[in-house]
Amino acid sequence: MHTPVCVQDFETHAFQVLAKGPLDYYKSGAGDQLTLENNRKAFSKLRIRPRCFRDVSTRNLSTTVMGTTVCVPFGIAPTAMQKLAHPDGEIASVRAAEKMGTIFILSTISTTSLEDVAAAAPNAHKWYQLYIYKDREITANLVKRAEAAGFKAIVLTVDSPRFGIRRDDIRNNFKIPPHLTLANFVGDKATNVSRAQSGSGIANYVISLFDPALVWEDIAWLRQLTTLPIVVKGILTAEDAQKAVKMGVSGIMVSNHGGRQVDGVPASIEALPEVVKAVGDQVEVYMDGGIRQGVDVFKALALGAKMVFVGRPNLWGLAYNGEEGATKVLDTLKFELDNVMSLSGCTSIKEVTSDLVVHKSYYSRL
Amino acid sequence: MHTPVCVQDFETHAFQVLAKGPLDYYKSGAGDQLTLENNRKAFSKLRIRPRCFRDVSTRNLSTTVMGTTVCVPFGIAPTAMQKLAHPDGEIASVRAAEKMGTIFILSTISTTSLEDVAAAAPNAHKWYQLYIYKDREITANLVKRAEAAGFKAIVLTVDSPRFGIRRDDIRNNFKIPPHLTLANFVGDKATNVSRAQSGSGIANYVISLFDPALVWEDIAWLRQLTTLPIVVKGILTAEDAQKAVKMGVSGIMVSNHGGRQVDGVPASIEALPEVVKAVGDQVEVYMDGGIRQGVDVFKALALGAKMVFVGRPNLWGLAYNGEEGATKVLDTLKFELDNVMSLSGCTSIKEVTSDLVVHKSYYSRL
Amino acid sequence: MHTPVCVQDFETHAFQVLAKGPLDYYKSGAGDQLTLENNRKAFSKLRIRPRCFRDVSTRNLSTTVMGTTVCVPFGIAPTAMQKLAHPDGEIASVRAAEKMGTIFILSTISTTSLEDVAAAAPNAHKWYQLYIYKDREITANLVKRAEAAGFKAIVLTVDSPRFGIRRDDIRNNFKIPPHLTLANFVGDKATNVSRAQSGSGIANYVISLFDPALVWEDIAWLRQLTTLPIVVKGILTAEDAQKAVKMGVSGIMVSNHGGRQVDGVPASIEALPEVVKAVGDQVEVYMDGGIRQGVDVFKALALGAKMVFVGRPNLWGLAYNGEEGATKVLDTLKFELDNVMSLSGCTSIKEVTSDLVVHKSYYSRL
Amino acid sequence: MHTPVCVQDFETHAFQVLAKGPLDYYKSGAGDQLTLENNRKAFSKLRIRPRCFRDVSTRNLSTTVMGTTVCVPFGIAPTAMQKLAHPDGEIASVRAAEKMGTIFILSTISTTSLEDVAAAAPNAHKWYQLYIYKDREITANLVKRAEAAGFKAIVLTVDSPRFGIRRDDIRNNFKIPPHLTLANFVGDKATNVSRAQSGSGIANYVISLFDPALVWEDIAWLRQLTTLPIVVKGILTAEDAQKAVKMGVSGIMVSNHGGRQVDGVPASIEALPEVVKAVGDQVEVYMDGGIRQGVDVFKALALGAKMVFVGRPNLWGLAYNGEEGATKVLDTLKFELDNVMSLSGCTSIKEVTSDLVVHKSYYSRL
Ligand SMILES: Cc1cc2nc3c(=O)[nH]c(=O)nc-3n(C[C@H](O)[C@H](O)[C@H](O)COP(=O)(O)O)c2cc1C
Ligand SMILES: Cc1cc2nc3c(=O)[nH]c(=O)nc-3n(C[C@H](O)[C@H](O)[C@H](O)COP(=O)(O)O)c2cc1C
Ligand SMILES: Cc1cc2nc3c(=O)[nH]c(=O)nc-3n(C[C@H](O)[C@H](O)[C@H](O)COP(=O)(O)O)c2cc1C
Ligand SMILES: Cc1cc2nc3c(=O)[nH]c(=O)nc-3n(C[C@H](O)[C@H](O)[C@H](O)COP(=O)(O)O)c2cc1C
Repeated sequence: MHTPVCVQDFETHAFQVLAKGPLDYYKSGAGDQLTLENNRKAFSKLRIRPRCFRDVSTRNLSTTVMGTTVCVPFGIAPTAMQKLAHPDGEIASVRAAEKMGTIFILSTISTTSLEDVAAAAPNAHKWYQLYIYKDREITANLVKRAEAAGFKAIVLTVDSPRFGIRRDDIRNNFKIPPHLTLANFVGDKATNVSRAQSGSGIANYVISLFDPALVWEDIAWLRQLTTLPIVVKGILTAEDAQKAVKMGVSGIMVSNHGGRQVDGVPASIEALPEVVKAVGDQVEVYMDGGIRQGVDVFKALALGAKMVFVGRPNLWGLAYNGEEGATKVLDTLKFELDNVMSLSGCTSIKEVTSDLVVHKSYYSRL
Repeated sequence: MHTPVCVQDFETHAFQVLAKGPLDYYKSGAGDQLTLENNRKAFSKLRIRPRCFRDVSTRNLSTTVMGTTVCVPFGIAPTAMQKLAHPDGEIASVRAAEKMGTIFILSTISTTSLEDVAAAAPNAHKWYQLYIYKDREITANLVKRAEAAGFKAIVLTVDSPRFGIRRDDIRNNFKIPPHLTLANFVGDKATNVSRAQSGSGIANYVISLFDPALVWEDIAWLRQLTTLPIVVKGILTAEDAQKAVKMGVSGIMVSNHGGRQVDGVPASIEALPEVVKAVGDQVEVYMDGGIRQGVDVFKALALGAKMVFVGRPNLWGLAYNGEEGATKVLDTLKFELDNVMSLSGCTSIKEVTSDLVVHKSYYSRL
Repeated sequence: MHTPVCVQDFETHAFQVLAKGPLDYYKSGAGDQLTLENNRKAFSKLRIRPRCFRDVSTRNLSTTVMGTTVCVPFGIAPTAMQKLAHPDGEIASVRAAEKMGTIFILSTISTTSLEDVAAAAPNAHKWYQLYIYKDREITANLVKRAEAAGFKAIVLTVDSPRFGIRRDDIRNNFKIPPHLTLANFVGDKATNVSRAQSGSGIANYVISLFDPALVWEDIAWLRQLTTLPIVVKGILTAEDAQKAVKMGVSGIMVSNHGGRQVDGVPASIEALPEVVKAVGDQVEVYMDGGIRQGVDVFKALALGAKMVFVGRPNLWGLAYNGEEGATKVLDTLKFELDNVMSLSGCTSIKEVTSDLVVHKSYYSRL
Repeated sequence: MHTPVCVQDFETHAFQVLAKGPLDYYKSGAGDQLTLENNRKAFSKLRIRPRCFRDVSTRNLSTTVMGTTVCVPFGIAPTAMQKLAHPDGEIASVRAAEKMGTIFILSTISTTSLEDVAAAAPNAHKWYQLYIYKDREITANLVKRAEAAGFKAIVLTVDSPRFGIRRDDIRNNFKIPPHLTLANFVGDKATNVSRAQSGSGIANYVISLFDPALVWEDIAWLRQLTTLPIVVKGILTAEDAQKAVKMGVSGIMVSNHGGRQVDGVPASIEALPEVVKAVGDQVEVYMDGGIRQGVDVFKALALGAKMVFVGRPNLWGLAYNGEEGATKVLDTLKFELDNVMSLSGCTSIKEVTSDLVVHKSYYSRL
């Protein structure tokens, strides 16, 4: 195996080394996986219109997110159970993010406790991804612990009253291996993903524990628990974006959960413009889904994302070799983004403007 | 072979276990099979715009069809000669439908008599699919027997003055095997599909016996035979839909006969919106063709279908293991539909509205 | 090998039995063969909107072409050197056309003399395809002989001042085999396709003998030679169609020469509507290129062609077994056209109207 | 191996005979290579609308470029290090161009010095492609030497403040082989591409030596160095084209550097119309990228290019057998262009007008 030169190389490697259960869990999308595929293909339908002969001798890739400066406009999306990829799991990821000076979002269903993650990377920009459990005490507890541990935002995932149908997890009767735990819950009733007798263990876990009765008004309940800003994750329509704004959220993450919920929803990058248009300057808009290279980041920024996040690329980096692999993935994206900015005439993130990216249909009118 | 987790798994299994003649008969479309393929592909061009954070803790999948409540908005389309798939044939299918609380449509050219089907599942919602024979006495007889046996609607197939050209049936010189009969005709002249010397036995049967001279006005003749509501099956244009409405039908089934008649007609899901628009609230519109998963049902409902039907999926279920297999297919669809409804914010069928589904071209305008 | 059930089966057979030189000559298109491929693909982008419940108990497939009745709306396009496919060559083809009651167009560069063709099928509708040679005497002679022999129209090919670049003919150094001759020229200087030392023999023949200086006004010269109606073959634009009409031609054949001239021109079926629109009722419009099945004929008629022609299908029929094979090909097309007419509600050619066929983009507007 | 009959044949041959390092360097595009691929695919979406029956007995393929007559409207684009393809390198190329009577553009990073190139083909139309080095003395020196040696224009490449990410060059740790040098720099500090320890040697070379601080105003500096006309190469937008015009350039080359800079920019042929429209008659517009056959040249001319250039085809010709191979490639293109002009009714370059080429979407409106 060659040293990876792009995220796809890390992916190819991970496909070779990971065990079937975890690999399928990581890579799968819902149903026929058309949305999963489209998350990538939709990027290839966007064209960059580069500008030449601007002084690009120095580029500044940093941006601000809710007032805080981050070194690059891409961070790490929350993905569950990262120890399936490498024994260091979430610790390796958060340290890679810390080194890069960017945001790491910890999943509620992580294999490392939020306190351990916080302790391992005290200077990282850490956000905490929240699933709301039927048992509101469990939930409130998580939020308070996250705030106490130094997490800087709550990322409330709104697309998962239950999980999408990921066929390979059902076929594999996917369970969390005995040596791992959902570390945020040690001792309480939300611990166990392995008890499923048949079907997908993770889907059954979600069905039994997550609260499917949530409505937009429940955000008010969350707000009185914490002073942290709230980002809602999983929005794909202008309608929902406006509802979120009305509830006073600080940020919106356009996301289709990596194509893992409903097969048939738009690619995240397809849905981004309508959300950006709907919310205007009221809140910041982020996105994840299908980001694999610098040009993808560039396109998403041009279409109005303030920041983007990568899910699977981080997992492939972990599988390569833990913190070092995760770091290499982020370095690769930075190198690529720096390159496309240089070659498109942009020296700062705010210069990545909407006129630099068009849909390919722009070129079918002669 | 793994336990099937989706309709495609049942299909893969059936392709392995069925004999060539029956398999080709079941799976074939007309000509180059482009419409057959497009029946599926057209679904993948539709995008679901899901809504988050609605209380989806309970979902009600039932709907009403011509005033009657059914438990799910999908039923079983009429397909001929189901004993080619499993010895229990139509009996197995109707019982699966009965268990699911949905509609079973019995083909005129079934391998079980309509009386036996009725007796096997007295509580099922049973409709009777009618082909009109040149011999009107045979035809009238069928209608009266169906009404007497407790069928609740006549589904008049209007797209088959003869059959389309299914090349493999010609190559196979497809005939009904000696141990099976067209059970609705035992003893009379419409019994025999096996007498063809060359070419497709079923096509020759149709040519010699079905009436190709039918016009819309003939529906009047049918109406005076029975008090049952009439559904016309096989409509693909606004023009024909309006003619059907004028003749006083109670329902219209948008269908291209599973891509088996003219290769080159639109996918059913493509034709659905123009029919829905043409008839407005005057009659109910149903559709079949290419439905293979919950998201397909969801898309068809959003585009205005009151109910959808599956043809081949039921046959693949039968081939898996009779009534149990047919039941599993229906259960799979229900599980999937329930899932997509949860994840799109719908708790009842009437909430599956047209704004939840768009053509993918919606996303090519930045 | 199975009995062929469609034109593609005849093609598959021909690909197996013909020698490389002739096969490549027959099947090739120019350049990258994109137009060749598109001649087929463009048909698959058209959708038929069938009408149900019309009395289709009898169908009449006959039509009139310049006042004469033919039994089917498809005939045989001129293709050179048919003895490469079968020893009976053009004789077999013309007899198949005679049996079918349709038009056979004889190529100028045939391997059977026009007199022999005429004698073999005295009752066939025969048209003579003309290339104009630099030597106008040779040309005038051909026209007069054709008229004398009973051909009923001159089909003047206007797309071939030289031949397109067919790479395999160059690679094969394609020549006419020694036992065949260009039979219309026996004894005169236009006989020999085999003298090329390198490259494509047929291309070199054309370069040295055909007149590339022709202009629309030269049609006047042709008209004074004969009283036969003139059809111009090879038109792809409204502009040229209007010029042809001005020169008093009786018919226009929309054609890209089977994709053999310029790679990159539209499919014939793509160009048809603009020509039909440009000429209105002034002259009849025909087309060839990519017709392989009944539904293709149906689509072309709906888009305004009065008659269509097949080139390669006839050659594949010849290769199957001469006159019998050519007959089977025509029978297959007739059977298929009859079927699609029945299933679309048309009982005569004039009922195949433009509202029955739409571009697939018609279905992308919800 | 057969004698090549088209550029693709030369390419196939080169893929077999070149060593991996040079081959990958030559063939690669940036990133996922979608722009590289699209440079070709975009041509296939354009349709030629040919005109028949014009006198095409003689065709004149010559055109004028900035007042000078060239024999064909295509020339050789600057590509670096041609001795990787054949020991005669740039000398072979320039002689092929000289024989054809067309333009040869010498790369700054050539493996033959500009003086040797000039001496080898004194009568060739030679242009000099310039990269501006941070060290302005080196740069000024190059320009003056080029003018002195008889080059007739400076082609200033504006799309390369650094190089795009060509993954195989990184994987191969691509370096210039020890027996070759960047011949324009012998002795000075800009000589060495082989010093890279890891990654792409050529990319590192560019990063360390090229000036990324250039702005449009720097063209003024260049203009006072030389009286030669300046062509800017690498423009893809109307905005940049207008800036170039304002700076007084004489020509604009629409180019994406053979898909080697940013993956995701439009195909050159896609970007051409917007540039042509933006500059009107103010300066001449040229293009390169994806030209492989006569029909491509034809399409680019119809869309407004005054002249086109080929990069890789020349390299494949060199790899075939030096000057002779390069000549054969040009001859092939000429033969093909002559053919398409004949068959489209054009006898001179100015007759290749914009109405002769349309986007394929022109044919989806019935
Ligand atoms: C294996 C896996 C686990 C995930 N777990 C979570 C999770 O626990 N919480 C959450 O909000 N999103 C989760 N996601 C979704 C990601 O946050 C993100 O939306 C998605 O991965 C982005 O797409 P990408 O993988 O193409 O970058 C998960 C995604 C994957 C692939
Ligand atoms: C094997 C087979 C037999 C069929 N027989 C009948 C029939 O007897 N009567 C009828 O109206 N439709 C018949 N159909 C058409 C179906 O009712 C239905 O329109 C079609 O199968 C729906 O498409 P699907 O198979 O993609 O679900 C048949 C279809 C198949 C595949
Ligand atoms: C092998 C071959 C030879 C042909 N020879 C002639 C010819 O001599 N004269 C002519 O006008 N067209 C000729 N054509 C073009 C045909 O008349 C016709 O335009 C074309 O074959 C129609 O396309 P199809 O082959 O897809 O049906 C030839 C075509 C082929 C394939
Ligand atoms: C191997 C290679 C080396 C190149 N070197 C240069 C160069 O030194 N300077 C430059 O301006 N363009 C360079 N180019 C870009 C070409 O001038 C031209 O834009 C491109 O090759 C055109 O695309 P084509 O290869 O599809 O014809 C290079 C391209 C290739 C493929």
